[in-house]
Amino acid sequence: MAERTKYLLDEEALPTHWYNIGADLPVAPPPVLHPATHEPIGPDDLAPLFPMALIEQEVTAERWVEIPEPVRDVYRLWRPSPLYRARRLERALGTPARIYYKYEGTSPAGSHKPNTSVPQAWYNAEEGVERLATETGAGQWGSALAFACSQFDLDCEVWQVRASYTQKPYRKAMIEAYGATIHPSPSERTEAGRKILADDPDSPGSLGIAISEAVEAAGSDPDCRYALGSVLSHVLLHQTVIGQEAMQQMAAAGDQPNLVIGCTGGGSNFAGLAFPFLRENLAGRLDAVIRAVEPTACPTLTRGVYAYDYGDTAGLTPLMKMHTLGHDFIPDPIHSGGLRYHAMSPLLSHIVEQGLIEAVAYDQKPCFEAGLQFARTEGIIPAPEPTHALAACIDEALACKETGEEKVILTALCGHGHFDMNAYERYLAGELVDRPYPQAQMDEALTRLPRVDV
Amino acid sequence: MAERTKYLLDEEALPTHWYNIGADLPVAPPPVLHPATHEPIGPDDLAPLFPMALIEQEVTAERWVEIPEPVRDVYRLWRPSPLYRARRLERALGTPARIYYKYEGTSPAGSHKPNTSVPQAWYNAEEGVERLATETGAGQWGSALAFACSQFDLDCEVWQVRASYTQKPYRKAMIEAYGATIHPSPSERTEAGRKILADDPDSPGSLGIAISEAVEAAGSDPDCRYALGSVLSHVLLHQTVIGQEAMQQMAAAGDQPNLVIGCTGGGSNFAGLAFPFLRENLAGRLDAVIRAVEPTACPTLTRGVYAYDYGDTAGLTPLMKMHTLGHDFIPDPIHSGGLRYHAMSPLLSHIVEQGLIEAVAYDQKPCFEAGLQFARTEGIIPAPEPTHALAACIDEALACKETGEEKVILTALCGHGHFDMNAYERYLAGELVDRPYPQAQMDEALTRLPRVDV
Repeated sequence: MAERTKYLLDEEALPTHWYNIGADLPVAPPPVLHPATHEPIGPDDLAPLFPMALIEQEVTAERWVEIPEPVRDVYRLWRPSPLYRARRLERALGTPARIYYKYEGTSPAGSHKPNTSVPQAWYNAEEGVERLATETGAGQWGSALAFACSQFDLDCEVWQVRASYTQKPYRKAMIEAYGATIHPSPSERTEAGRKILADDPDSPGSLGIAISEAVEAAGSDPDCRYALGSVLSHVLLHQTVIGQEAMQQMAAAGDQPNLVIGCTGGGSNFAGLAFPFLRENLAGRLDAVIRAVEPTACPTLTRGVYAYDYGDTAGLTPLMKMHTLGHDFIPDPIHSGGLRYHAMSPLLSHIVEQGLIEAVAYDQKPCFEAGLQFARTEGIIPAPEPTHALAACIDEALACKETGEEKVILTALCGHGHFDMNAYERYLAGELVDRPYPQAQMDEALTRLPRVDV
Repeated sequence: MAERTKYLLDEEALPTHWYNIGADLPVAPPPVLHPATHEPIGPDDLAPLFPMALIEQEVTAERWVEIPEPVRDVYRLWRPSPLYRARRLERALGTPARIYYKYEGTSPAGSHKPNTSVPQAWYNAEEGVERLATETGAGQWGSALAFACSQFDLDCEVWQVRASYTQKPYRKAMIEAYGATIHPSPSERTEAGRKILADDPDSPGSLGIAISEAVEAAGSDPDCRYALGSVLSHVLLHQTVIGQEAMQQMAAAGDQPNLVIGCTGGGSNFAGLAFPFLRENLAGRLDAVIRAVEPTACPTLTRGVYAYDYGDTAGLTPLMKMHTLGHDFIPDPIHSGGLRYHAMSPLLSHIVEQGLIEAVAYDQKPCFEAGLQFARTEGIIPAPEPTHALAACIDEALACKETGEEKVILTALCGHGHFDMNAYERYLAGELVDRPYPQAQMDEALTRLPRVDV
C-alpha cells in the first residue's frame, strides 16, 4: 500500500457547529466602542449594517454555534476540503519534518472566503435583506460574496480597490459572472469616495477606503446590509470549519501538529485553522506552537500598536481594540492584496496580547520563491497570501534538516493563485521589490488614532 | 441524513490500469500511414517523436494497461477526482432528470490534461529523454505538460498559438511558473514557423501550425521528444481513469447513466469519460446514449469528412484516417481554444463511423449562457470547452421537464474557467459573435487532402 498523499472526509464528517474560541479564553477581549460616544456598542448600533443573527454571533458566549442546514448544504459543494501531506516538498527539501497543508482552494471562488460568505448571505436572506454591499482588495472576498449571493438570490454590490480593479480584470469578470455589480474604489457613488477623489483624483484606493464606501452604501439603504470578509469575530467563527476538519484529518494521518502556521491579513484564514488547535492547547491536550505570518510591508502584529482604532479610513466603523498601523496608513502595493489591511482582527489581536500565539513577518520575494518551489513539487500554484505561511514552513523544515527533528508542521493553504499569475510573472521577471518599511509614515498615521480612555 | 452532493473516492480506489477500448471494438480502426510511402507505419517510424513505451501503447491489443506506480503517485495529488450530483442546477431547471458531472478541474493545471501529461513525461524520463516539445492552444495542455515535466525533472518547451499567447498571459505565466519555456507560434525558431511568417508576418497561428513547430523541434534534437495532448490513442487510453472512477462513483450514487455527454476537440476528455461506459454498452450491460458535443465553428464530426489527413498544417505527421475539415482549415477564433482542432481522434472517428456514439454541434453563445447558469447554481465557473457539454445537458434536462422522464445524465466537466474569464467578460458585454460556418473555406481545404488509395 502506497503512502497516502491526501486525507479526504465524507460529507457526513462536515462540522455541524462553528467553534467560538471566546468561550475558552482565560481573559475576555475588550469591548467594541461606539465611534461617537466611546461607550460599548449594543446590537441596535450594528443593526443598520448587519442582520441580527450575525450581531448575536459577534458577541455570543456559546462555545458551539450550530451551522444552519441550508449553509451546510452549500458547503457541501466543496467541503470537507482536502488535507495533504506535502511528501514531494519534504523530499525536495530533504527534511525529516512532516508537512501537512489544509487546502481551501477547491471552493468555487478559490479560497477560504466562501466559508463565511455563504452563512453571511444566508442570514441576510433569512432576515429579508435584498442586497449586500462589500469591499474587496485582490478580489477573493468579492468573488466569494458574489458566489454566495447567487446561491440565495441576493443582489451584491462590490467596491474593489481601484489598483486591483485595474490590474486584475479576471477577478472582476468572476464577480460579474456570479451576477454581482462591481465598482472601482474610490468611486463617485459615495460621500467617502468623492472626498478621497477630490483630494486625489488618481487615488489607487485601499481596503480602508473601500470599506468606508460599502459601509456608507449599506447604511443609507434599508434593504441593504454590509458584509465583511475578515476581521470580525463572527467571520473568524465561520472559518473554524477549517480547523475542525483538519483535526479529524490529522487524526486519520496519525499525527499531531507541533507547529501550526498561517498567513494573516485580517486574521480569518489563520484563525479558521488555528482556533480549534488553540482550544486543544488551552485544554492541555496539545502543546503546539501557533504562528501567524504577515508581510513586512503590512506588519500589524510585529510592528503595529495595540490600540483602539477604526476599521476603515473614513472612521465610519465602531472602534475596536486591535493591532493597527493607523486607519489611514496605506501599505506598499505588494501582490498579497489580502494581507494589505491596516489592522488585525480584534479577537486575534487580543489572543496575541495574551501570549497564546506568536507572529513573524516575511518579505514578499522569499514568499514567491517558496510559492514556486511548492508549485513545482506539490503542483498547486498558491495565492501570494499563503506563500507567506509556506515560506515559514520551508524555513522550519530546513531547520529540522539541521537538527534532525521530526517536527509535524500544519499549514493553511487558503487559496490558489490562478488570478495572481501576473504577480508570479513579475517575480520571474525580477521586477518585484521589497521596500524598506515606511516607519515614519506609520508613526505619523498613529498620531491620528482616536483618543479613547478605557 | 441530507442528500449527497458529491461522491468522493479514497486513494485506494484509484484505477490500477488504463482501459483500451481497442480490445473490445467489433471492427479494428484503419492503419496509420507513412506520409511519404502511404504504407502502414511501424514503431521505428515514430521513434524520433515518442518513447517506445508510448508507441507500444498506441497500438496495443491488450484491454488493460498497467499504470506505473510513480504515475499513480503523482495522480494522487488530485485523483480520484470528485463526481457531483448537480442538485442546484436540477432545481433551477425544474427537471426530473438527474444530472451528474465528473469534475477534472481539481488537477494542478485545472483540467483533465495532466491525466496524460504525467505518464507521457514519466515514460520519456524513463527512456532517458531530456526535453519535451509540444504545442498548446488556449494553454491547458501546455500548463499540464509543464507541470508533469516539473515532477520528473524534464525540460519542457511549449509553442503556443500566437493569438492565445497574446490574449491569455496568465496561462503563459503558469507554464513559466512550472519552469517551462514558451514561444508564440508561428515562431522564427523552426522551418515550419518561418515559412508561415514569410507568407503572413501577422499570422495568429493555429494548433496545426504549432504542432508542426513542436514536431520539427523534437525531430531535430536526439534528446528531445514530442508530446501531444489529445487525438492519439495512447492519450485517450490515459484519460480512461476518468470514466473508470465515474463508474465506481455512479454505483455509489445508485444510478446508471442513460446518457453520457462530453465535449470534443481532439477527443481525449470525451473518450476518457465515455470509453469505460461504451465498454458496458458493447458488453450488453448498459444501454446508454453516448453523445459528443462540438462547436459549430469547428464541426469535425458533424460536417467534416472521414478521410486520411495530416495531424498538422505542414504535413509532417503520419496520415491518419479521421474526421477532418482539412489540415490547413483555420477555424473561427472562438473562445473554446481546446475545441479548435481541424480533425478528430482517429480512434474516436472510427467509433463514430461504427455508429457507437453520436455527435451534435452547438454555437458558442448558448454555451456561455449555460456556463453562467452552471456557475450561479453549482458554483464552479466552467472552462468554455465543457460549457458545450453543459448546454447539451441542460437541453436534455429541459426536454425531460416536458416529458416527465427521469433521465440520468452524466457529463464531463473537464476544467475550470479561471484562465478564460475574458471570454465570459466578452460574453457578458455582448461582444461574442457566432459566425455562419465557412463551408466554402472547408470545401477548399478538403481539396488539399492527401490522395490515399487503401
